[in-house]
Amino acid sequence: MKSDTSDLYAMHWKSQIDRDDFPTYDKSLPLRSAIASYMGHASHTLTADVVAEQEKLLWADFVILQFPLWWYGMPAILKGWFDRVFSCGFAYGIGEHNDKHWGDRYGEGVFKGKRAMLVVTAGGDESNYQARGICGPIEDLLFPVNHGMLFYTGFDVLPPFVAYRSDRMKEAEFEHQAEKLRKRVQTSSSTDPIPYRRQNFGDYDIPALTLRDDIDSGNQGFRIHQKDSGR
Amino acid sequence: MKSDTSDLYAMHWKSQIDRDDFPTYDKSLPLRSAIASYMGHASHTLTADVVAEQEKLLWADFVILQFPLWWYGMPAILKGWFDRVFSCGFAYGIGEHNDKHWGDRYGEGVFKGKRAMLVVTAGGDESNYQARGICGPIEDLLFPVNHGMLFYTGFDVLPPFVAYRSDRMKEAEFEHQAEKLRKRVQTSSSTDPIPYRRQNFGDYDIPALTLRDDIDSGNQGFRIHQKDSGR
Repeated sequence: MKSDTSDLYAMHWKSQIDRDDFPTYDKSLPLRSAIASYMGHASHTLTADVVAEQEKLLWADFVILQFPLWWYGMPAILKGWFDRVFSCGFAYGIGEHNDKHWGDRYGEGVFKGKRAMLVVTAGGDESNYQARGICGPIEDLLFPVNHGMLFYTGFDVLPPFVAYRSDRMKEAEFEHQAEKLRKRVQTSSSTDPIPYRRQNFGDYDIPALTLRDDIDSGNQGFRIHQKDSGR
Repeated sequence: MKSDTSDLYAMHWKSQIDRDDFPTYDKSLPLRSAIASYMGHASHTLTADVVAEQEKLLWADFVILQFPLWWYGMPAILKGWFDRVFSCGFAYGIGEHNDKHWGDRYGEGVFKGKRAMLVVTAGGDESNYQARGICGPIEDLLFPVNHGMLFYTGFDVLPPFVAYRSDRMKEAEFEHQAEKLRKRVQTSSSTDPIPYRRQNFGDYDIPALTLRDDIDSGNQGFRIHQKDSGR
């Protein structure tokens, strides 16, 4: 099986989106990143580093995003990878918009047919990230990434692999975690993805994009966007 | 009233944390950012741009963080501002740890007595971000910032100001939103903060840092960390 890696720090990845990302964008205009990235993508003038990452993603069947949890989210350099690589016209702003179909997103999109999985290290104890932990449940902290970035662009998103107390991990525990992770990767093609509801297949009112009143009635929040939420 | 602004793009703010942030850190060691930032803070060798932001925060009574919502969170450059400015020994990793008090955090900390508020622009419709909207409720999307970064470091966090469809906003609507925002700023000292539960005052089991079983029993998720959650 072929694999490829993007080590953002080793690549000296540019973290923030700015005018340098759009060399042909009119410098007399205020920078509006959605429009600038749409025009850059359409005219094939996005920068080479961004295009190379887009091509890697189009090539891959299975994408693992590995990062430490810093301040309850991903490090800036990885957020900037999403901000820059997930261009308008490529990862969002695609597909028809009508009263039955509101763009190719949330279950459809450029990465349809591919799988993705987060591998996350956290410094804190697991209890802090459980259902009633003070940090909030880990699946809710990761919802913006899993649902908002990966499922949005068409990926089937596998449950995340999370290692806790990673800064204090002893050799034996490291081996145990490594073995668990190896198994997760080896079984990735047979692991059930998180059962997020697709946007354009009847569960949502369009164009409000709110869950239909008669589905999981009375509930709210991130969890209602899974098909098993009403159980 | 005095005010000061940090315009991260205009300042050419360095987005990602890396070895250049810790000039005295042993280059033969793997970079562990918590330890490196703790040592840098303790030995007064953090970079001048980071120290200047820390001093601005210590000076301020009221801090507004303004950003566009990109991929369900803040732009990379602002995430990097948190990653770099909220140093270990300054913003986290402070205070005693014992069976009644687990660090100065979540309601205590370096910014105790100060207020903070997010001002957020979103491209999507407001319905997408309501209780049953497909993006998830805006208060949940902002929980990692409001609770995990601001309340964690001691701020009283005011409810956020959010403007929707901001890319398509017409002049009259812009004026309307600007007037609403002006009022929010003018009334900031009398606005009730989000009633997050403080960590060290009896609501949480220590050191598990889980909400006590008898408080808001049976519920889970971000909402239970507000004092009004059980209503």
